Amino acid sequence: MYKNIDKKDLAFLKDIVGEDRLLITLPDGFNNDEMPIYGLGNGEVAVYVINSTEVSKILHYANENNIAVTTRGSGTGLVGSCVPLHGGIILSTAKMNKIISIDPSTMSAVVEPGVLLMKLAAEAENLNVMYPPDPGEKSATIGGNAATNAGGMRAIKYGVTRDYIKALELVLASGEIVTLGKDVSKNSSGYALKDLMIGSEGTLGIITKLTLKLIPKPTLNVSLLVPFENIHSCLQAVPELVQLPDICTTLEFMEKEVLDDAKEYLGKDFPDRHYPAYLIITYSASTQIQLDAMIKSASDKLKTLNAKDIFISDTVERQSSLWNTRGAFLEAIKNSTSLMDEADVVMPITRIADYLDYINQLSHQHQVRIRTFGHAGDGNLHVYVCKDDIEEARWTELLPIVMDALYARALEEKGAVSGEHGIGHAKKAYLEASVGKTQIALMRSIKEVFDPQWILNPDKIIDLK
Amino acid sequence: MYKNIDKKDLAFLKDIVGEDRLLITLPDGFNNDEMPIYGLGNGEVAVYVINSTEVSKILHYANENNIAVTTRGSGTGLVGSCVPLHGGIILSTAKMNKIISIDPSTMSAVVEPGVLLMKLAAEAENLNVMYPPDPGEKSATIGGNAATNAGGMRAIKYGVTRDYIKALELVLASGEIVTLGKDVSKNSSGYALKDLMIGSEGTLGIITKLTLKLIPKPTLNVSLLVPFENIHSCLQAVPELVQLPDICTTLEFMEKEVLDDAKEYLGKDFPDRHYPAYLIITYSASTQIQLDAMIKSASDKLKTLNAKDIFISDTVERQSSLWNTRGAFLEAIKNSTSLMDEADVVMPITRIADYLDYINQLSHQHQVRIRTFGHAGDGNLHVYVCKDDIEEARWTELLPIVMDALYARALEEKGAVSGEHGIGHAKKAYLEASVGKTQIALMRSIKEVFDPQWILNPDKIIDLK
Repeated sequence: MYKNIDKKDLAFLKDIVGEDRLLITLPDGFNNDEMPIYGLGNGEVAVYVINSTEVSKILHYANENNIAVTTRGSGTGLVGSCVPLHGGIILSTAKMNKIISIDPSTMSAVVEPGVLLMKLAAEAENLNVMYPPDPGEKSATIGGNAATNAGGMRAIKYGVTRDYIKALELVLASGEIVTLGKDVSKNSSGYALKDLMIGSEGTLGIITKLTLKLIPKPTLNVSLLVPFENIHSCLQAVPELVQLPDICTTLEFMEKEVLDDAKEYLGKDFPDRHYPAYLIITYSASTQIQLDAMIKSASDKLKTLNAKDIFISDTVERQSSLWNTRGAFLEAIKNSTSLMDEADVVMPITRIADYLDYINQLSHQHQVRIRTFGHAGDGNLHVYVCKDDIEEARWTELLPIVMDALYARALEEKGAVSGEHGIGHAKKAYLEASVGKTQIALMRSIKEVFDPQWILNPDKIIDLK
Repeated sequence: MYKNIDKKDLAFLKDIVGEDRLLITLPDGFNNDEMPIYGLGNGEVAVYVINSTEVSKILHYANENNIAVTTRGSGTGLVGSCVPLHGGIILSTAKMNKIISIDPSTMSAVVEPGVLLMKLAAEAENLNVMYPPDPGEKSATIGGNAATNAGGMRAIKYGVTRDYIKALELVLASGEIVTLGKDVSKNSSGYALKDLMIGSEGTLGIITKLTLKLIPKPTLNVSLLVPFENIHSCLQAVPELVQLPDICTTLEFMEKEVLDDAKEYLGKDFPDRHYPAYLIITYSASTQIQLDAMIKSASDKLKTLNAKDIFISDTVERQSSLWNTRGAFLEAIKNSTSLMDEADVVMPITRIADYLDYINQLSHQHQVRIRTFGHAGDGNLHVYVCKDDIEEARWTELLPIVMDALYARALEEKGAVSGEHGIGHAKKAYLEASVGKTQIALMRSIKEVFDPQWILNPDKIIDLK
């Protein structure tokens, strides 16, 4: 269907990027993402690009020659989106990693797509500003975050990646370079092409520059660690907490079992592991007096909501202890099992308590370990179905049954397939079940508009034509 | 090109909506919006629809019979977007005005498209929640706000309409009813069709229900009225103010001349009119102590920024006096002249001081009165070129020269054509000049995907094929 890479193609690529940035033998990990279960891709050659002109030339060539092009940043995705399914070129933006500018007077930053989230966070902080999106994986690239519309810990207060992208420079499948949006706060100038591009997982264009919105950095943060007697009462507190006058900056939930996994993985303990379920609630402010008011209001409320205790983390050390553990959950669960599959469902926050009950029931019914944590304040759960020592034959039969059940129930709870991880190739069937044939058909037609040869990350989000 | 309405069509429409909601003689104002300069449309018949089934049947019929359909809410648009250019049916959502639910536990509201902004604001307030978008025109419909991605006073802190739409039920040109998005906080589930629909001005589908995001209502607000010696120093303060640790809720600028117009129009005076230029800065909080900290920090900063004074409006009466005047600017300017044209440009906030200087220069050069006010904190200016007693022949020659110059300069200042009013038919040429042929071609192809017969609000945003 697509042309395989031949000597002529390699010579062309070498002309564009030079020998050093042409990888004929793929480096380790270049044909997969963070989820081994979604398998290895079949990318044939990789290039590190360093500017939009290179991307333009490569896409123009690939488009003319019917070669698939799969873009990757850090490869930290969780739905197989950067795993090539149709051979061709792997285009890495990892070396397009310059922060071009950070301007507090316009509250904007201009960055290349390969800039790591942690690098931008640090540089912004130096200038007293903040890029609010805060996905758990700090070594993800900003380009990857844009491609999946990543969410993260602070979405409850600040929103998601989409809300912080003012403009995107990108290369279309034809090789043409366009800029969608401007360095402005609001824009009602024609169809929202920029928004269409955000979350399209490299299937409609390749992002080569991003203009981001920043905000003043809150100077003070306090996190409350709040234990509950069970996960149900823990999650039932959430719809009450969101009604407090001040919106918290994070509202995460976790179960004891995940904390146990994290202790095992990190070799460090969490501040408390005596209770079955916990919330971490963070408040941010610019003065101590504001912060104290927020904490008092939250504490008063929590006392009426069956909280068993309130541990206040108001030093950098204590907060690091909380957040380092929280940040390790994914790796800790991965480390605790032989193989796992994931669901990133999102639903109204009033539904997550019942959904977690359902997960427990499912786990018992099928005798399979399921671990869960996530962004309680967003109704966004990360659910991990663990293979452990289940034998291959039973696992192969069991896994689709459990995953189908998880997504079907999420749909019944008025949820969506993915809150922040995207669709890739792993979740396509669930997307169609959720949005229906008409929306999939619209998406296919939009794909045709932007990429008539279907060379860009083919077979992701929607099936190949 | 499109079929004219005949007796058979009228009989069909009468079957769907009944006699009472079929308007064979168009009510006053149904063929225009708020800007007389963009002319009268040529809609042939109007219907008040009351549910999505009616809309579905009408669109299915119009699509089969090649009849243009132009949707309108309150008709408060400013770019001719609801002015029919190709005859056919005017579809009014004004009677789809039910607030279906407001749920503080999920922080969401479900409303019909014809609900007025002021009605939603009042009902939300009763439940201690807030719908943050706050466009100046409170009698606009929520559907119209979604169709133009309206911004408003509070965008600097809370963002625009787009940021508060979780899901849209809409009717496609074919008559099919779909729901884009879910009642969830974040969503990375395939292409952002919902975002594409927002701001598409009724050209891609007709919105029949909206699920909106709410936030806790701030209990306390204070507005500072801050005079400056000239508009330049007034606007130069803006990039400094946005760097304060607490983001203000509004940051508006105005010139003395507009205040004079408003006094003339309202018959009521503004708290102060001694200075050439003013900022209104509002802070919102949930405790007095927080609010005091914000005001202190802003006042300290303003003293270093050539502010001539700081008038604090901390009572409901004083704030009403400020905001009633601010809310009347558009009507006041309209009232002060025989005819006017408008630009709604948006640019980086560091550019607006120079842009205002340019406007003054243009005004002198062409001997034409230009009035300006707007959302300084967003870099979003509303610029009104007033005909006054300029005679018709000179006006016809002059106006395009001045408007072209305004948009060209906005582009040089890295701005966009519209911050919040949209494109309609009045700003199409400026859109193409701003985004270029490739993006217009992409928009045209997207139009084809959603509306292959081009029956939905034809000739808006992009030219008819």
